[in-house]
Amino acid sequence: MSLPHPSSDQISLANVLAVLGDQTRLAIVGYLARNEGVAMSCGQFLDFGSKTNLSYHLAKLREAGITQTEVSGTSRLISLRRGDLDSRFPGLLDSIITAAREIPLLERLKEDG
Amino acid sequence: MSLPHPSSDQISLANVLAVLGDQTRLAIVGYLARNEGVAMSCGQFLDFGSKTNLSYHLAKLREAGITQTEVSGTSRLISLRRGDLDSRFPGLLDSIITAAREIPLLERLKEDG
Repeated sequence: MSLPHPSSDQISLANVLAVLGDQTRLAIVGYLARNEGVAMSCGQFLDFGSKTNLSYHLAKLREAGITQTEVSGTSRLISLRRGDLDSRFPGLLDSIITAAREIPLLERLKEDG
Repeated sequence: MSLPHPSSDQISLANVLAVLGDQTRLAIVGYLARNEGVAMSCGQFLDFGSKTNLSYHLAKLREAGITQTEVSGTSRLISLRRGDLDSRFPGLLDSIITAAREIPLLERLKEDG
């Protein structure tokens, strides 16, 4: 089973920005960026919200083309679509990740260790 | 008379992204960027929507701290808050402006001259 993802040329700037215009989704993207190269499972985002809320936020990120979700048995592995985003919108993802370091959810995570 | 604007440190990344997640507002920002240094009046955005719609979009941009609106007699002069945005979110505005060049409303404007 695989989940639907937009192709690279279907990724819309307005939609990417609209979906990232949310503290929880920014925190998820910041966390993914900090762990780049490692696919994260949903459970690793539980600091950012309830399971139901997370499912919603992760679907929004996937549908906008910001993340890739791979279904592996009973778990879902999530990673940033850095290649697609960097080629479509050069510099955008990095500037957002840098700016997102200040947002409260990620700040709290830093304090926790 | 002057309109309310957030101070630089009140500008929120999530809010800036949410407000820019809209084709019309991206087109307005792209147009302001192309004419940087010149304050634009509302009337210059009429290609992007009706007067009522524009008032709404311009208010959203101002309230998010993306634009500065100066009231001068009966007209309103709008400019990008580049200094504030660049210092708060380095590289963000430029990457969005570059990516926004492809959006339909600005494309149409290019064809028109």
